[in-house]
Amino acid sequence: MPGEFDFIDWIRSMQRPSGLVKLGVGDDLAVLNWPENDLLLVGVDQVLDGVHFDSRIHSPRSIGKKAMNRNLSDCAAMACLPAAAVAAVALPRGAGEEFARELYLGMREAADVFDCPIVGGDTGVWDGRLALTVTIMGRSAGIEPIARSGAKPGDWIYVSGPLGGSLSGRHMTFEPRINLARELAGAFEIHAMIDLSDGLSRDLQHICRQSGVGALIESDQLPLHEDIGKIPQNDWSPAEHAVHDGEDYELLFASPGCDHPAVFRIGQITEDRAIRWRRGDRFEALQPKAWEHAL
Amino acid sequence: MPGEFDFIDWIRSMQRPSGLVKLGVGDDLAVLNWPENDLLLVGVDQVLDGVHFDSRIHSPRSIGKKAMNRNLSDCAAMACLPAAAVAAVALPRGAGEEFARELYLGMREAADVFDCPIVGGDTGVWDGRLALTVTIMGRSAGIEPIARSGAKPGDWIYVSGPLGGSLSGRHMTFEPRINLARELAGAFEIHAMIDLSDGLSRDLQHICRQSGVGALIESDQLPLHEDIGKIPQNDWSPAEHAVHDGEDYELLFASPGCDHPAVFRIGQITEDRAIRWRRGDRFEALQPKAWEHAL
Repeated sequence: MPGEFDFIDWIRSMQRPSGLVKLGVGDDLAVLNWPENDLLLVGVDQVLDGVHFDSRIHSPRSIGKKAMNRNLSDCAAMACLPAAAVAAVALPRGAGEEFARELYLGMREAADVFDCPIVGGDTGVWDGRLALTVTIMGRSAGIEPIARSGAKPGDWIYVSGPLGGSLSGRHMTFEPRINLARELAGAFEIHAMIDLSDGLSRDLQHICRQSGVGALIESDQLPLHEDIGKIPQNDWSPAEHAVHDGEDYELLFASPGCDHPAVFRIGQITEDRAIRWRRGDRFEALQPKAWEHAL
Repeated sequence: MPGEFDFIDWIRSMQRPSGLVKLGVGDDLAVLNWPENDLLLVGVDQVLDGVHFDSRIHSPRSIGKKAMNRNLSDCAAMACLPAAAVAAVALPRGAGEEFARELYLGMREAADVFDCPIVGGDTGVWDGRLALTVTIMGRSAGIEPIARSGAKPGDWIYVSGPLGGSLSGRHMTFEPRINLARELAGAFEIHAMIDLSDGLSRDLQHICRQSGVGALIESDQLPLHEDIGKIPQNDWSPAEHAVHDGEDYELLFASPGCDHPAVFRIGQITEDRAIRWRRGDRFEALQPKAWEHAL
């Protein structure tokens, strides 16, 4: 029965040379040559069976891809370039080496798009469910990172694509908006940015709380994703799906002005700290209905 | 019921200012000012319920501490200084916010010893068991990282402390040998180093395989830990416990000569690639009996 160390040998054989990576997979730590005058960005994001994917339905390849793409989407949210990643997998006993390889290949498929090497990892087998954790490191590479905290009253609010219905399947297959984020950050003044993972109603709250501002969203300007039609009918309107569903992985940002053709203007930052949306003639509080992990 | 975002607010309130951390917990990624002329080291290591700890026995504080210390021990193995960490926790539903805080405080307790800030994280709640993943970033800070791959025939083999019996309790409470590793690397020529997590019989194999060499261990020179006496009697000798038990978190290294008072010389690197130990008059193959995660 092959063990963890054969798996690591296989991963090592999959590595490609990189100027950044002085010492890659297979030692206690990876060693990176960090470029001068670059900021280092770092974050971690896990995907858990039954929460972010369903191992009975989703292939290990698609699970690996999602785990990496969620982290790459965090790079997009900061307008940085991914530089390197490490991954930890908690494998259910008996899942097998082929399953572990497929997880890795899914992560590689996503990371290779951005030439982001996977430089280290940890594999553990347990009597638990599948958990896959990716840590991403990014480089500012000439563009100042865009935090959540810089939105100013009067800024317009934009999203980079249509929203809603992601759980019908798109949440496993989305493309992180790194190239667009770099393009936007290079060409326009962007005061605050986040990627839409928890849903606009929740993620806009992050920007507003951290910037000390409020917001008014125009319901009739929300770009609605056609996937909303694939969600079983319930008592939510399409606009409610767009703001609450989550896992859109589009960019949400505040800017004094951005006329890029790929983005949609959906509202405005206010001095008043309330977060509201205009629905027809009514102004309603826009409260998160997306899931918040209850501890 | 408090949720993930209250927990993040609490973590944010626990942060201390740091020259390295330009933007800490609470955004999509943390932003670090990376010092010039420093190599960046990075690694990830998880602790899983039922494998690395038992949540029925061990406190969340001690679990958090172990998760961080395992990563700090990887820094010791490379002779680097820890610079920053991020953590991901998969929390069993209903564990509660106090439990999550205790995990964090355990991690902090370990990281604070080395002024290593925890700059980001991810909290998820699921119907699974507790998994805690820490990613550590280290700085070379004037000392060239020591890989596993540089051992040379004729080098002596050393360990930094007595071995065996760790599972009687020491595996939760060990101290990572960062200061000793930096001292050794600054004062002596060290060709290869690793920290003993899987057991000497396994970890020596890593050094030998990656260096293309073999080794001869002198059984009667192995420093035996008094904890071996706390392990229920079985058919292993004390020396077998010392080489196979694992989770010692001492340094194992190869050097042409190291007369530091804290270290024990236990054998020699050989050109012949076999890994053996001398037991009385007999030369036996030293094969790993420590657990290898079967995939």
